[in-house]
Amino acid sequence: METVLNALKRKLSDEQITTNQTVRELHSRDETYHQTSLPDVVVYPKSTKDVSHIMEVAQEFKIPITPFGVGTSLEGHVIPYQHGISIDFSLMNKIIEIKESDLLVTVQPGVTREQLNKELKKYGLFFSVDPGANATIGGMAATNASGTTTVKYGVMRDQVRDIEVVLADGSVIHTGSLAAKSASGYHLNGLFVGSEGTLGCFTEITLQVYGIPEHMVAARATFPSFTHAIDAVTSIIHAGVPIARVEFVDEASMIQINKFSETDYPVEPTLFLEFHGNEAGLQADVDFTKEIMKDNKCQEFIFETDTAARNHLWHARHNLAYAYVHDYVGKKMMLTDVAVPISELANAVTFARKELDKLGIPGGLVGHVGDGNFHSLIMIDMANTEEVQKAKEFNEKIVLYALQRGGTCTGEHGVGVGKKQYQQLEHGTALGVMKQIKKVLDPNNILNPNKIIDIE
Amino acid sequence: METVLNALKRKLSDEQITTNQTVRELHSRDETYHQTSLPDVVVYPKSTKDVSHIMEVAQEFKIPITPFGVGTSLEGHVIPYQHGISIDFSLMNKIIEIKESDLLVTVQPGVTREQLNKELKKYGLFFSVDPGANATIGGMAATNASGTTTVKYGVMRDQVRDIEVVLADGSVIHTGSLAAKSASGYHLNGLFVGSEGTLGCFTEITLQVYGIPEHMVAARATFPSFTHAIDAVTSIIHAGVPIARVEFVDEASMIQINKFSETDYPVEPTLFLEFHGNEAGLQADVDFTKEIMKDNKCQEFIFETDTAARNHLWHARHNLAYAYVHDYVGKKMMLTDVAVPISELANAVTFARKELDKLGIPGGLVGHVGDGNFHSLIMIDMANTEEVQKAKEFNEKIVLYALQRGGTCTGEHGVGVGKKQYQQLEHGTALGVMKQIKKVLDPNNILNPNKIIDIE
Repeated sequence: METVLNALKRKLSDEQITTNQTVRELHSRDETYHQTSLPDVVVYPKSTKDVSHIMEVAQEFKIPITPFGVGTSLEGHVIPYQHGISIDFSLMNKIIEIKESDLLVTVQPGVTREQLNKELKKYGLFFSVDPGANATIGGMAATNASGTTTVKYGVMRDQVRDIEVVLADGSVIHTGSLAAKSASGYHLNGLFVGSEGTLGCFTEITLQVYGIPEHMVAARATFPSFTHAIDAVTSIIHAGVPIARVEFVDEASMIQINKFSETDYPVEPTLFLEFHGNEAGLQADVDFTKEIMKDNKCQEFIFETDTAARNHLWHARHNLAYAYVHDYVGKKMMLTDVAVPISELANAVTFARKELDKLGIPGGLVGHVGDGNFHSLIMIDMANTEEVQKAKEFNEKIVLYALQRGGTCTGEHGVGVGKKQYQQLEHGTALGVMKQIKKVLDPNNILNPNKIIDIE
Repeated sequence: METVLNALKRKLSDEQITTNQTVRELHSRDETYHQTSLPDVVVYPKSTKDVSHIMEVAQEFKIPITPFGVGTSLEGHVIPYQHGISIDFSLMNKIIEIKESDLLVTVQPGVTREQLNKELKKYGLFFSVDPGANATIGGMAATNASGTTTVKYGVMRDQVRDIEVVLADGSVIHTGSLAAKSASGYHLNGLFVGSEGTLGCFTEITLQVYGIPEHMVAARATFPSFTHAIDAVTSIIHAGVPIARVEFVDEASMIQINKFSETDYPVEPTLFLEFHGNEAGLQADVDFTKEIMKDNKCQEFIFETDTAARNHLWHARHNLAYAYVHDYVGKKMMLTDVAVPISELANAVTFARKELDKLGIPGGLVGHVGDGNFHSLIMIDMANTEEVQKAKEFNEKIVLYALQRGGTCTGEHGVGVGKKQYQQLEHGTALGVMKQIKKVLDPNNILNPNKIIDIE
């Protein structure tokens, strides 16, 4: 390690390199139950050139590098299981350019979602992807993040026009262009988004952004059962209502929301909804949605039209995971994350609910149900090996249920280490193609090794 | 060749294999100026297994295979410059399944766009990508086709949930799943869409489809100059009006449209527009668009609300290329196809118009201007080498103009052979990554060789 540190010191200034135990511990974990593992050293690049230099050192000594944003990862992506170098992008946090007239923004990877939206607001613009956590744009691109607004605006991959990537050998590429569409070359934007640091490190990201909608209305709808709520969502999607958000929250999770966010929402299966558009069209969408709600025995349909109430509703929803963590001190969070075809959603959620009831571990169900994506959120005592084992088996049951119905083991949290064991089952022979791509772009397997795919 | 034919005959029935001169000639060209080249043999697979067998034979004898849909390609993709096997997918033209409740459809690659939409209409559904030509879904996926509706619904890549692909060694993979979103594995859907037959042959494609909109209104708007028309489009995009189609057609092209489609539209710079949505919202969008039009000196804004008039308008627009071909018998068509960031569009179109005026070759400008994508369509006398040279230089000027402004050499027609010489300039060091992927997935370079990228 001494020689590696010396090599790094020749390329970076001293304050950009640390082996401090506390800092290493901060880079040894994510927000969930995944086992921690310390990096040998944490480095703080300030430029693309710095990242290239780090990569050259890692390549020379064949030691692993693991990129790190703010550590809001949920499947262990940022945990350096083979130690080596953790690259912390917090010093690369500049918004490089807002091209207002092209609805484009170029940022460094360490820029956070909230930081970006704060700046964009000055121009009447917003960045659409909203996973809840205040993640970095680099992390969100690396994991193809999505969230509450995906049902209307799409996932992270849909927003990325271009990424500057430092490859395993330290060379630099651009994966796209500034054009809104292109049929030129292979789709490297798509390949690198969601590659979880296994194919390269992102140093600049150009994203499309949107004008803040003319009108926005949020609503809460409660139902006598969660199947009624899910059926309502399925009907909304079938009807083609261009809904901007539609989130399912079960009773257990409503309790957590009320506790943590000091709300007094009814403890019933609930949908949180949002509509964006011009006033007249939005009203027609809302009216039509109300009819669908009524058909599905909706008990209460409450609007939040003013900005403060609307923001409070979404903060409450977004803080749900933290509400659980806060309420179960000492326990660790595990989240299932399957997505299924929409016709399978009601049954899949029923299955998850039953399995969760059987489990006897505290938790609830929530989901971006407009995309067929839902989470079971459970709090586990890591000291109780039987409980950990039961929780893992529960997660696996949900995954297998989804895969058997044409779904995916991860709708949005990514593979990391948590979903690696299901890649063969989900992708079959296609996993071989993924391995070939990984091997040819990272022959020494130094880039976030053994995330997504195990390379022998 | 005898041994190849014998090997094919062992795997396929006799009527699936032909060396007939006329049939080979039909598989030697696309719809444009690109030089023709004959395949040695044309084969007609009926199943995935047949395609695997053909691939195994091609691999054994190291001879090239070139996939062929209906030959509406515009950059020479389907022309077998190294001869070998042309795989014609016309016998694989079944719609396998319409999953109405999931808004999904699975088709064989030889299904055409119009065939699919005819069937989907029975379910109140439609497939959104509309390049004008009645291309096959396989061809459209292979070239990442887009067109008039892309400004609202996205490109081909955005619609593809899963592809069954036969790889160079005859093995079969699936690139995706049925889930609306996924963060699992590398994004093979995106990589294979637009790979132009250079990474594998598609044998099944699963696409998302949409409910036919509640209301649709088409309109024509004429302007005193094309810059007024383009400025109006830029304003529509900036304002975030969710327009479904916005097409620019210049005077020269309006003449062709009137001649071929027996219309009497004014011969002025024109926008063809379409709006989709609920009645109230659509009216608000139309009203807002009218204001933008007025601000940009729009002379006439004519609605086509009834279905027949609306269809006639879009048929007229879609038949524009054929109108030119029909009017200039004996000449060949060349199309430029750049896309630029929207802020550069007005200047780029002005530049193209000036260069076209200087050229002295008949042609016009049209474009999917909401995406920053436009075409110069010119008719060239292939016997006149000076004219051919001038036309190529014109195409190059437009490409270089776009690339210098962060654009792409091809917005939607693909690379094929026509844009191959600009791949290095557009993608720089990223072209090396593309080459690595091509080499590892097709080590003997038998899959549509030397399209997109030259492999040494």
